[in-house]
Amino acid sequence: MEHTEIGIVRTAVTRADPEAVAALSAYGVATIHEAMGRAGLMRPYLRPVYPKARMCGTAVTVLLQPGDNWMLHVAAEQIREGDVVVAACTTESEDGFFGELLATSFRARGCQGLVIDGGVRDVADLERMDFPVFSRAIHAKGTVKATLGSVNVPVVCGNALVRPGDVVVADADGVVVVPRERAAVVAATAAAREAAEEGRRARFRAGQLGLDVYDMRGPLAELGLRYED
Amino acid sequence: MEHTEIGIVRTAVTRADPEAVAALSAYGVATIHEAMGRAGLMRPYLRPVYPKARMCGTAVTVLLQPGDNWMLHVAAEQIREGDVVVAACTTESEDGFFGELLATSFRARGCQGLVIDGGVRDVADLERMDFPVFSRAIHAKGTVKATLGSVNVPVVCGNALVRPGDVVVADADGVVVVPRERAAVVAATAAAREAAEEGRRARFRAGQLGLDVYDMRGPLAELGLRYED
Amino acid sequence: MEHTEIGIVRTAVTRADPEAVAALSAYGVATIHEAMGRAGLMRPYLRPVYPKARMCGTAVTVLLQPGDNWMLHVAAEQIREGDVVVAACTTESEDGFFGELLATSFRARGCQGLVIDGGVRDVADLERMDFPVFSRAIHAKGTVKATLGSVNVPVVCGNALVRPGDVVVADADGVVVVPRERAAVVAATAAAREAAEEGRRARFRAGQLGLDVYDMRGPLAELGLRYED
Amino acid sequence: MEHTEIGIVRTAVTRADPEAVAALSAYGVATIHEAMGRAGLMRPYLRPVYPKARMCGTAVTVLLQPGDNWMLHVAAEQIREGDVVVAACTTESEDGFFGELLATSFRARGCQGLVIDGGVRDVADLERMDFPVFSRAIHAKGTVKATLGSVNVPVVCGNALVRPGDVVVADADGVVVVPRERAAVVAATAAAREAAEEGRRARFRAGQLGLDVYDMRGPLAELGLRYED
Amino acid sequence: MEHTEIGIVRTAVTRADPEAVAALSAYGVATIHEAMGRAGLMRPYLRPVYPKARMCGTAVTVLLQPGDNWMLHVAAEQIREGDVVVAACTTESEDGFFGELLATSFRARGCQGLVIDGGVRDVADLERMDFPVFSRAIHAKGTVKATLGSVNVPVVCGNALVRPGDVVVADADGVVVVPRERAAVVAATAAAREAAEEGRRARFRAGQLGLDVYDMRGPLAELGLRYED
Amino acid sequence: MEHTEIGIVRTAVTRADPEAVAALSAYGVATIHEAMGRAGLMRPYLRPVYPKARMCGTAVTVLLQPGDNWMLHVAAEQIREGDVVVAACTTESEDGFFGELLATSFRARGCQGLVIDGGVRDVADLERMDFPVFSRAIHAKGTVKATLGSVNVPVVCGNALVRPGDVVVADADGVVVVPRERAAVVAATAAAREAAEEGRRARFRAGQLGLDVYDMRGPLAELGLRYED
Repeated sequence: MEHTEIGIVRTAVTRADPEAVAALSAYGVATIHEAMGRAGLMRPYLRPVYPKARMCGTAVTVLLQPGDNWMLHVAAEQIREGDVVVAACTTESEDGFFGELLATSFRARGCQGLVIDGGVRDVADLERMDFPVFSRAIHAKGTVKATLGSVNVPVVCGNALVRPGDVVVADADGVVVVPRERAAVVAATAAAREAAEEGRRARFRAGQLGLDVYDMRGPLAELGLRYED
Repeated sequence: MEHTEIGIVRTAVTRADPEAVAALSAYGVATIHEAMGRAGLMRPYLRPVYPKARMCGTAVTVLLQPGDNWMLHVAAEQIREGDVVVAACTTESEDGFFGELLATSFRARGCQGLVIDGGVRDVADLERMDFPVFSRAIHAKGTVKATLGSVNVPVVCGNALVRPGDVVVADADGVVVVPRERAAVVAATAAAREAAEEGRRARFRAGQLGLDVYDMRGPLAELGLRYED
Repeated sequence: MEHTEIGIVRTAVTRADPEAVAALSAYGVATIHEAMGRAGLMRPYLRPVYPKARMCGTAVTVLLQPGDNWMLHVAAEQIREGDVVVAACTTESEDGFFGELLATSFRARGCQGLVIDGGVRDVADLERMDFPVFSRAIHAKGTVKATLGSVNVPVVCGNALVRPGDVVVADADGVVVVPRERAAVVAATAAAREAAEEGRRARFRAGQLGLDVYDMRGPLAELGLRYED
Repeated sequence: MEHTEIGIVRTAVTRADPEAVAALSAYGVATIHEAMGRAGLMRPYLRPVYPKARMCGTAVTVLLQPGDNWMLHVAAEQIREGDVVVAACTTESEDGFFGELLATSFRARGCQGLVIDGGVRDVADLERMDFPVFSRAIHAKGTVKATLGSVNVPVVCGNALVRPGDVVVADADGVVVVPRERAAVVAATAAAREAAEEGRRARFRAGQLGLDVYDMRGPLAELGLRYED
Repeated sequence: MEHTEIGIVRTAVTRADPEAVAALSAYGVATIHEAMGRAGLMRPYLRPVYPKARMCGTAVTVLLQPGDNWMLHVAAEQIREGDVVVAACTTESEDGFFGELLATSFRARGCQGLVIDGGVRDVADLERMDFPVFSRAIHAKGTVKATLGSVNVPVVCGNALVRPGDVVVADADGVVVVPRERAAVVAATAAAREAAEEGRRARFRAGQLGLDVYDMRGPLAELGLRYED
Repeated sequence: MEHTEIGIVRTAVTRADPEAVAALSAYGVATIHEAMGRAGLMRPYLRPVYPKARMCGTAVTVLLQPGDNWMLHVAAEQIREGDVVVAACTTESEDGFFGELLATSFRARGCQGLVIDGGVRDVADLERMDFPVFSRAIHAKGTVKATLGSVNVPVVCGNALVRPGDVVVADADGVVVVPRERAAVVAATAAAREAAEEGRRARFRAGQLGLDVYDMRGPLAELGLRYED
C-alpha cells in the first residue's frame, strides 16, 4: 500500500481472473455497486465523454502530475489485452491529458478504455473510434512531459482506491471498482440480484406497489407515518 | 403552508384543471416562464438525464431524507394518471434515489415523469423506456429505506416552491412550476405570446433588426449609447 | 485596450483575413491551441449546447450586463457575413440571454454562431436550426432591456481576451481565440502539426510506443524512473 | 402563496409574537432546527460576512432582480424595529447588492440584519458597524436601479420558504426560518431540548459513551455490527 | 497585446504615476470600481488569505503553468518598490505556488502583495508577516520548476485583463484593476464619489429613506409598483 | 485493504510510534507533504472551522453513511489518548454530523481533533473549546442514527487513503496523512528540510534572488527564456 511513491513503474501485476472479469462485464455499475454492499463507487463528477461509452477491464494505474501526461506514455507499455487505464492526479487538474493519438496507441495495445481524474480532448475522435473515456472535464489544453509520476501503484481516483489488477466497470451511471480478489464473488452476487429484480419488475409492471412488494406498510406505521385527507 | 412537517402523507390533493394542463403541455418552459411574469423557474442545475426528455403534469410532491428513497415508494400509491412526481430533499444529496424499477412502478400508475433535487441511476434504461427525469446528478449510489419524510406537502425543489397539484413542465431549457389556480390563465397568456412572436420571427428572418422591430434606437440614444468608427 | 468602457459601439472593425479564417476552419480547437504555443483557450466551462456544434468566424464582441440582453440586439446590426458573436458579461450570470428569435436574427445577418459567458434558452430550437452556441449554462430565465453595455470593445470571455475581428474557433473540445494578426501564421503551423501527427498516428496504430516514437526512455531514466517487478 | 408576483409591496404584515421572537433569540440555529423536527434550514452556502455575526428577527422579504438592488430601498420603508431583511433573487447572482450606506439606512429603521441570496460589499464597514449579514458571496460589483421586484411577498431564499413576519435566526452554523405561527411552540421545544442536552453533556464530560448514554448497543448488534480484533 | 506569448520576460515596464497610485490607495475596491464606471473587477473567487489583507501597487504580471512556480522566481527580479505581483495561470490550478520563502524574497524587493489565480500555502506565516495575498485557494501542494511561462506580458487573471504597470487594489471586497493611463482620473472620480456619499450617509443615519434621498418614488410608480395592504 | 466492508469495527489498531508522532507535530502540513515526496495531501476543500485550528495524532477511521452519524458514537469507544478521528462518507454529504456534545465526548476520551469529509455544527462552541475540526462544510442540519458504517477500516477521505493508526496532521494549509510505518523517516526528512530552508530564508531576506539561490539562470536560458526591453 505505497500509493505515495513517485517515480516508479511496477511491471508485475496480479490481474483479476479473466472469467470473473467477463462475468462482471454483463452487469451495470449500479448492480455491481449493490452486489459489493454499496461500496466501490467513484464520485459522480466522472462522466462519459460520449453518451454510449461503456467499459470493463483490469486496471493499469497511473499517477499523473498536474498539466503533465508523460506517465500515460509510460503506462502504454504496461497495457495488456483486456486492461483499462485508471489515471489519478496528485492534485485537481482539468487539463487535456489524453486525446486521439494516445487512444490509438492504447487501443493497439489492447486497452478497453480510460478513467481519468482530469481532462481529455479530441472527444469527437474518441466517439468516432468508440474508445470509451470517463473524465472530470473536456478541455483542449495541452500538457507537457517534464515530471515523473508512477505506474501500477495503488491510486485514489474520484475518491476511490484502485490497485493495479482490480476490475473497473464504467457506464452511464458512473464508475465502480471491484477488488481483484472479490471479482468472482461479486459477479455471482450481481447475478443473484438481477434474478431477484426480474421477479419484482413484473410485479411493478402489473401495477403492484413497492409498499406491498417489499412489505413496507408495517415498518412505516411503526415509525409513525400518518395519512391525512 | 406546512412544508416543514415530517412523517405525513396527504391523500387529498386539489389538482390543476386537466384542460389547463393539456393546454400548457403545448408550450416550452421558456414561454411559460415568460407568461408567468418571469417567475416559477427552478435553478438550472436540474437537467434532463437524456436529451429528448420532456414532460408536463400535476405534482405529487415528496420530501426525501438524504440517502433514503423510502418516501418514493410511499408516493407511488398517491400517483394518478397524468401526475408527475417532484422530489425535494431535506439537504443536498446526489445519491441515486431512483432507477428503472421505480420508473416501471411509477409508469404503471400513470406517472408522466420525475423532477428530483438529487441523483438518479439506470439512466440508459430510463432513456430506453422514455421515462423523463430531471435531476441534479447521475449517480449509481444506492439508498436505504430507514427514515420518514413526507408526501404531498408543499416542498422547495431547485429553489422553487411546489404544492401538490401544481403544474410542472420540463424540457431541455429547464423546469417551471405553475400554481394550480393560475394554470388556465398562464396557458392563455402563453398562447398570446407565441402568436406575437410568430410575427416577429418572420421579420427577423427577413433581416430586420430588433433595434427596429422593438423600437429601441430612441431609448438607447437617450441613455447615451455612442457609435464610433 | 479600453475594455472597461461602457456605452459604446465601435462600427469600424479590422477583421482577420478571410483566407486565413477559411484555413483555420479546417482544424480542431486542440490543434489550433497547440499551434499558438498552447495559448488562447477559454475556460472549459463553456460547452456546446448540442453535441455537434462547431463554428469558426471573426468576432463581433459584446459586453452584457447581468440579466440584460439589450446589447445583443445592438450587436446584430454590426454582424457581417462570416462573423461570430462573443458575448462577455460584467459579472457571472447564468440567465437565458439568447434564444431562437435572436438566433433567427443573427443568422439572417450572416452570423456563424455565438460564444456567451452566460446562459441561453430554446436549445432544442437551436439544435434544430443547427445554430452553434457555446455557453456557460442552459437556463429558461428571461432577461430585460434596461442597461447599457458595449459592442466591439475588447472583452474578457471565459478568462480569454477577445478583440473585435479576432478569429474564434469552437468545437466539442472548447473555444480558442486567434488574434487577427496571427491568423495566417497559426493556420500554417496547424497544417504542419497535423502532417507531423499523421506519421505518428500510423506508428501508434502499428503498436509502437510513445516511449520510442518520442525517444523518451533516456530522459525518463535520467530523472530516475525505476522499473520494478 | 403568491410568491411569483412581481411589482408589488405588501404593507400589512402579520409578524410573529415579539415574546416568542425574544425567546427564540436565546437559542442557536442548530437547536432551533432540531426543535422544528429538523426542518426550516437554508442551504449552507449562506455564510456570515464576519465571524461573530448573529441575528434574530421577523422577516421583511424582498425579491430582487439580478444586478439590481432597487427593491432594497423600497424595503427599507417597510422595516420596523426588530425586523430582519431576507432578500431572494429571481436567479443566481453574486453581485454586491448591499453595502455600508444601505446598512446605515436599515439600522436607522431598526433592522437587526440581512440574509441575502446574493453578494454584498463594504464588508469591513459592516463588521465595524456590527451589522450582521449572511450572504452567498462577497463582491464589490455594483448594481443598478432599473427593474421592479417585490417586497413582503413569500420568497424562496437559500432553498427555504420565507413569508413576511416569519422568524429568521442566523449564526455561525447557518440560517433557519420559523413560521410565525409556530414561534412560541418552537421556542418551548428548544428550551426543553437544551435542558435535556445539559444532562447528557455532564455524562459525556465524565467520559461516558454515547453508546451507553443513548442505549445504542442493542440496536447496533441487531443490525449486525461486528467487532473484530 | 501579445498575452499569448510564452517564454518571455519584459524588463521595461511603464508604471502608473506614483502620485496617482498613492491617491488610489486611500479608497476601497468598491469605490474605485464605481469610479471606473463599474468595470475592472476580478471575479469574487479571489479572496484574501487572512482577514485584514489589503494592498495597492503597480503590477508585475506573471503567466504560470499549472503546478509550476518557476516564473515567480523570474518575476522577483523585475519587482521594484511599490509593485504588486499578479500571477495568472494558463489553466485552472489550485496548487500552492507561493509560500513564506517567496514572500520573504518579494518583500525584500519592495513588493506590496500578491494576487494569484491559483493556490498558496504557509498562510499562517503570511498573516504573521502581514504580506497580503489574494488567491483562488489555500493548498499545501508543492510545485515544480520545469516549464516556461512569461513575466510582464498582459495576462487575464480572475477574468480581468492586467497589463504590466497597471494599478491593482485589493481589500476584503475583492480585487480591481485600474489601467495605468487612467489612474489619476479614477482617483479624482473616487474622491468626488466619496464626498457625495458622505452627505447621503448623514441623511440615512437620520432615518431618511433612499426612496427620498434618490427621488425614486416617481420612477417606481411609473413602472407600475403597487402598494397593497 | 478491505475499505469496502460495511458493518465492522476493528478494535486492534497498530498506531504509529508516539515519538514519531511527537516529532511530526513540530512541522507544518506543507513541510511534511514535501518530506513525503509531495504526496499524502487531502483535497483543499477540507478547511478548519476556526482560524487557529491545528492538530496532529494517530487516526481512528470512520466510514459514515450520508445524513447518519451513528458510527461516530461507535468510534468514540475506540479512541485512545493522542488519537484523531478521520471520518469519510460513502457519498458526498454536507450534513452536520458532529457538534459540541460529540466534541465533549471525544475530548473526554483523549481525542486531539477531527477531520471529516462532511459538515459540522456548533462551530462557535468548537472554537470556544479549541477542539480542532477540519471539514467540507458548516451546516446546522441534524443527522439520524439508522444505518451501519464501519470503524477502523481503511477509508478514502478528501481523496486520500487513511488507514487506522496512520498519522494525520492538519493546519491552516490543509490536511496530510503519513503512513504509520513512515512516520519516523518523514519526521527526520522534515527536520532536514527546515534546516535547509533556514539558510535560504536569510539569503532571501538579504535581497538575494531565487534565480541565484537555486542556480536557475542556466536552465532557464537553455529552455529559451528571452529577456526583452
